[in-house]
Amino acid sequence: MAKNAVISIDIGGTKTLAAVVNAQGRVIARRRMETPQEGPQRFVETVGREVAALLAETGLRREDLLGLGAGAPGPLDPETGVVFEPPNLEGWRDVPLAEMLQEVTRIRTFIENDANAAAVGEAWVGAGAGVSDLIYITVSTGIGGGLIFGGELYHGVSGTAGEIGHMTIEPEGPVCGCGRKGHLEILASGPAIARMASEALRAGRPSSLSGLSEEAITAETVAEAAAAGDVLAIEAYTRAAGYIGVAAASLVNVLNPQMIVFGGGVSKAGELLLAPVRQAVRERAFERPAEAVRIVPSALGDDVGVVGAAAVVFRRAVD
Amino acid sequence: MAKNAVISIDIGGTKTLAAVVNAQGRVIARRRMETPQEGPQRFVETVGREVAALLAETGLRREDLLGLGAGAPGPLDPETGVVFEPPNLEGWRDVPLAEMLQEVTRIRTFIENDANAAAVGEAWVGAGAGVSDLIYITVSTGIGGGLIFGGELYHGVSGTAGEIGHMTIEPEGPVCGCGRKGHLEILASGPAIARMASEALRAGRPSSLSGLSEEAITAETVAEAAAAGDVLAIEAYTRAAGYIGVAAASLVNVLNPQMIVFGGGVSKAGELLLAPVRQAVRERAFERPAEAVRIVPSALGDDVGVVGAAAVVFRRAVD
Repeated sequence: MAKNAVISIDIGGTKTLAAVVNAQGRVIARRRMETPQEGPQRFVETVGREVAALLAETGLRREDLLGLGAGAPGPLDPETGVVFEPPNLEGWRDVPLAEMLQEVTRIRTFIENDANAAAVGEAWVGAGAGVSDLIYITVSTGIGGGLIFGGELYHGVSGTAGEIGHMTIEPEGPVCGCGRKGHLEILASGPAIARMASEALRAGRPSSLSGLSEEAITAETVAEAAAAGDVLAIEAYTRAAGYIGVAAASLVNVLNPQMIVFGGGVSKAGELLLAPVRQAVRERAFERPAEAVRIVPSALGDDVGVVGAAAVVFRRAVD
Repeated sequence: MAKNAVISIDIGGTKTLAAVVNAQGRVIARRRMETPQEGPQRFVETVGREVAALLAETGLRREDLLGLGAGAPGPLDPETGVVFEPPNLEGWRDVPLAEMLQEVTRIRTFIENDANAAAVGEAWVGAGAGVSDLIYITVSTGIGGGLIFGGELYHGVSGTAGEIGHMTIEPEGPVCGCGRKGHLEILASGPAIARMASEALRAGRPSSLSGLSEEAITAETVAEAAAAGDVLAIEAYTRAAGYIGVAAASLVNVLNPQMIVFGGGVSKAGELLLAPVRQAVRERAFERPAEAVRIVPSALGDDVGVVGAAAVVFRRAVD
């Protein structure tokens, strides 16, 4: 029998999702867990138990599986399976994650940067199914990305390609979390949107958000207020989307992609985010590539991580 | 006998170079001509005569040649051989250049955007010989580029990829020749460097350039003054190079290339241009990709156009 299912793991700073995904990209079973905060050894042991539970639940045996795929935040080496220094996982540094997962689960394991995996997933069975040249941009606490050129994930020479959140947008702008000036992430991520809204509120601007505490002002509550017509909230989103549009326009002129897919929590705001991005691309990019590119939301939503990690296994395990 | 030579043509707004290039990338013979300004038909007739002269000079027959390659400015379709609208060639619009050249010369013809051809040339026998992931940036009257990913020229979905001069650097900056705000080209091309120097001179700043007429202030004379230690001239170059460095840093974070090669007239200033670019990359890009990238000058100089166009033939004619 052909091995037509994989286990996939979407590793987040607070939550981790484990799933069984079939060769059609469908999630057959899934289990959510809190991400253990006691370091990588504890993490892989927890994953091992969840994988065993998924196998019991689905009746699959290890030999039925093509492999295990894990999407992890931050830079990593997909060849050696080593995670360098994920920004949201404390105590993880140069962790041989693929090896550790393989040892615990006894399933052949592949790892990939989470935004890269998401790009592969969207190009497989998502918004970009059948599209050969695609850029995936995730906007949430941070901003990341993945590049598909000629149908293949593009890693660059040291495996770090796709850091769209760290394009310089305002050369003398505010300092990014990474320590450098004017990057997209500090200007347009979820926290940036919340910060812009909070600043406008403190300046005394009227808004439906003015009753909320400082901590309750998040990209999500701002998006809700914007959806209800709140001008301050709409302005905060439009400004962030304008910065993202500057980056998108540069990517359109340099890479001339067929599609840009937006995922991540902030992208759930839909047209509130995408419409100003499209406008910036029309204004700032050449006509021919601007007309060629489709700018669309993720079709996989919260499953993009597990479907993407599964896609990585289906692509790489058959090499 | 293997066909181990090609004819190649480097089409410029004022000068055109025709050459015979061998399979080792060496220029065996070359002829320079003024670019006829009377439209494409007159142009291909002139090229036809020069090609005949090159054949006579080298004793080669048409059947000894693998093909003819032409590098042309501006967007074009390398598949159909149509040049859309080269910025510096008046009266050229949707010109079936490959077909016209083939008809006149009776040699199988391939065309490519000039910056793309230069990228292929540098990756073949130039600064990037053997490098698989390379970005070529040409800085002269305009700023253009070409992308080599996995050893192959990357065209994007509509053939326009590589427009590095039209990345947005200052979202509210001056309007570029293309009509859009804050692009790299308006901030850092040769004319931009001359303009910055002229403005500083008009503001009364002392400089060895102050005796020159407005027309004599060019990127070249500014580079000469800078080489002789003129502070105003050095500042103009450093500022332009800083903008180029912003673009380079974003490209390093997004594409993680092995090498960036700088060509074009302005790049002849060498370290005056490259040192501030390297510094901007160190300051603005992530450590891992910034350490991985080598930022170097073109190794082919004025021959990059004909060697690049020849490289295109050697790659494509054997497909």
